[in-house]
Amino acid sequence: MDLVSSLTADARRQRSSQPGDDVPKFAQATAVLRAPAPVPGEDALTALAGLVRDDLDLCNRTIVAHMDSPVALIPQLAAHIVAAGGKRLRPVLTLAAARMCGYEGGVRHVNLAACVEFIHTATLLHDDVVDESQLRRGLASANAVFGNQASVLVGDFLFARAFQLMVADGSLRVLEILSNAAATIAEGEVLQLVTQNDLTTSEDQYLTVVRGKTAALFAAACEVGPVIAGRPPAEQQALCDYGANLGIAFQLVDDALDYAADQATLGKTVGDDFREGKITLPILAAYEAGTEAERAFWRRTIEDSEQTEADLEEALRLMDKHGAIRTTLERAGYFAGLAKSGLSLFPEGRLRAALQGVADYTVSRLR
Amino acid sequence: MDLVSSLTADARRQRSSQPGDDVPKFAQATAVLRAPAPVPGEDALTALAGLVRDDLDLCNRTIVAHMDSPVALIPQLAAHIVAAGGKRLRPVLTLAAARMCGYEGGVRHVNLAACVEFIHTATLLHDDVVDESQLRRGLASANAVFGNQASVLVGDFLFARAFQLMVADGSLRVLEILSNAAATIAEGEVLQLVTQNDLTTSEDQYLTVVRGKTAALFAAACEVGPVIAGRPPAEQQALCDYGANLGIAFQLVDDALDYAADQATLGKTVGDDFREGKITLPILAAYEAGTEAERAFWRRTIEDSEQTEADLEEALRLMDKHGAIRTTLERAGYFAGLAKSGLSLFPEGRLRAALQGVADYTVSRLR
Repeated sequence: MDLVSSLTADARRQRSSQPGDDVPKFAQATAVLRAPAPVPGEDALTALAGLVRDDLDLCNRTIVAHMDSPVALIPQLAAHIVAAGGKRLRPVLTLAAARMCGYEGGVRHVNLAACVEFIHTATLLHDDVVDESQLRRGLASANAVFGNQASVLVGDFLFARAFQLMVADGSLRVLEILSNAAATIAEGEVLQLVTQNDLTTSEDQYLTVVRGKTAALFAAACEVGPVIAGRPPAEQQALCDYGANLGIAFQLVDDALDYAADQATLGKTVGDDFREGKITLPILAAYEAGTEAERAFWRRTIEDSEQTEADLEEALRLMDKHGAIRTTLERAGYFAGLAKSGLSLFPEGRLRAALQGVADYTVSRLR
Repeated sequence: MDLVSSLTADARRQRSSQPGDDVPKFAQATAVLRAPAPVPGEDALTALAGLVRDDLDLCNRTIVAHMDSPVALIPQLAAHIVAAGGKRLRPVLTLAAARMCGYEGGVRHVNLAACVEFIHTATLLHDDVVDESQLRRGLASANAVFGNQASVLVGDFLFARAFQLMVADGSLRVLEILSNAAATIAEGEVLQLVTQNDLTTSEDQYLTVVRGKTAALFAAACEVGPVIAGRPPAEQQALCDYGANLGIAFQLVDDALDYAADQATLGKTVGDDFREGKITLPILAAYEAGTEAERAFWRRTIEDSEQTEADLEEALRLMDKHGAIRTTLERAGYFAGLAKSGLSLFPEGRLRAALQGVADYTVSRLR
């Protein structure tokens, strides 16, 4: 809890005085919509979070309040992962989408952003158990600290808590969007498990995994914004598509980073996907373009899980030889482009520009 | 899937021709309400299931239809556990509670009964991973056959699917009841994990675990019946209480059976709770009444998890010496009595008698 509080405090310290801070809510939101685009070169995600920083503060407080339980291990374990919680990308998307669509006069967007983060956190807890991960964002993973059993059960609790929050919101359409997303996420995770160690996995199947395990929640996080703002179906669909394409781009870059980042930057162990035999585009692209001898290498290391210390380096060499990381990032760029262009439906403004900037930022993390 | 179909077929074969089979739905339900009590000595759960057998057939078909997914492993794994699925006690409670309250004219009770079974099944999958169980109802557990990873993820899928079904039902009150139950179940499971190997656990804490991990879903399963039938709050509360007390009685008997049943009857390994250091009333009662030497035995085997082959037999001897199983069953009888008397609010009839009979049956399983 203390870590989370300090994160929240950090967010407050980062507040710079901006015009509109003291004007009434509605005028402030209008000002945000009309304000100029963020300074080029600024980290787009920081910029976007800055535009919804009051909402995000409230969202962080909502998260802390709702992960409480008389069973002390629940807030302890939840705080461990929520505090390590990275950039709150998904809740920021919900907050920004709602504000861009003119949502005013309540905290539904804040509560639903917390929901989205709870679903994400529950998924992370279960993912780390399934992958036997020891690191998460540079810290020991919850399963490494508290054990697999606690991670499974606290994940279940956070998932249930997310639904309680949604029910309290009271919109059946929102419940539909988020329960569909939850089912699609689980399907994607199971499909990923099935394709593990299987080099006959097609790029299409890989994309189905990515759409499930990552893009579905990005899409839902964005779609609830226009829904609670009462915007027409075309705008709901546009933000759903934006989120889905952004999520695909994000996951593709993550899959590239697993091979291309240095460990300190990555916050997890480089080559984890390789060691687990997880089928991602860098491997598929290198395998596809490989000679028969190279394919034998992939079959031994990925299909038969027979790996030596030197194999990761050889895998990286083959990926470099065939431009597999570049291919992966090009695909990511394609989906980021789709994400950006889909927002043209919305009037120009600071939030739209920042959301588009996040799409660029997602693919530029590595470059 | 085939196993489930054959289960459903079994249920159909067991149909005996009864008056009212061909009369219109409303008259049929009324007939059920007015019909005489079941024959004494008949298995009360079979009798109750018989009273809602058409609904239960439809519920089984709904379960099979909704566990489908393009990801083949999902229906495969789900069928494994759903087919082994015991007596469908929880969905039968939903169906019977709804019918006793006069629910007519739709299939909401059937869909919600399927929901309840999905939540139960998801919990079982995760429980077996947490407990590293190898057997479930006499068959290899899903984690033993498909692995822990698949069990965690398919559990997540079934949980999400349950929420999709609830959302399709469209009642926020029902969603509230079931999402609260899901959170309480997870809290109970985490508390059980925390109390594991801890002989200072009080009977009160033990009952909190039981209320969470078992009674919460029994209560919710029963409460949704009067809710969809549009019955007043007093009746909703009465059936919620009936379910909660029945669930406590059920779990207490289960905890006794873990020591007192023979393996063939139990469908799982006798003494599992002992080997896992799970704190249940049989252990608490024997520990509480034990001599200092006996307490040292419990501390070594349960707190320090140092067990030899002969220790289970010694544990059983100490439980017998102090009447720990009898104490557990007496407590179960107390809660079964509460369950029965709480139904006096409802008019006499076959369904009420059968629900009361199930409370007796729950505690007589062992005697």
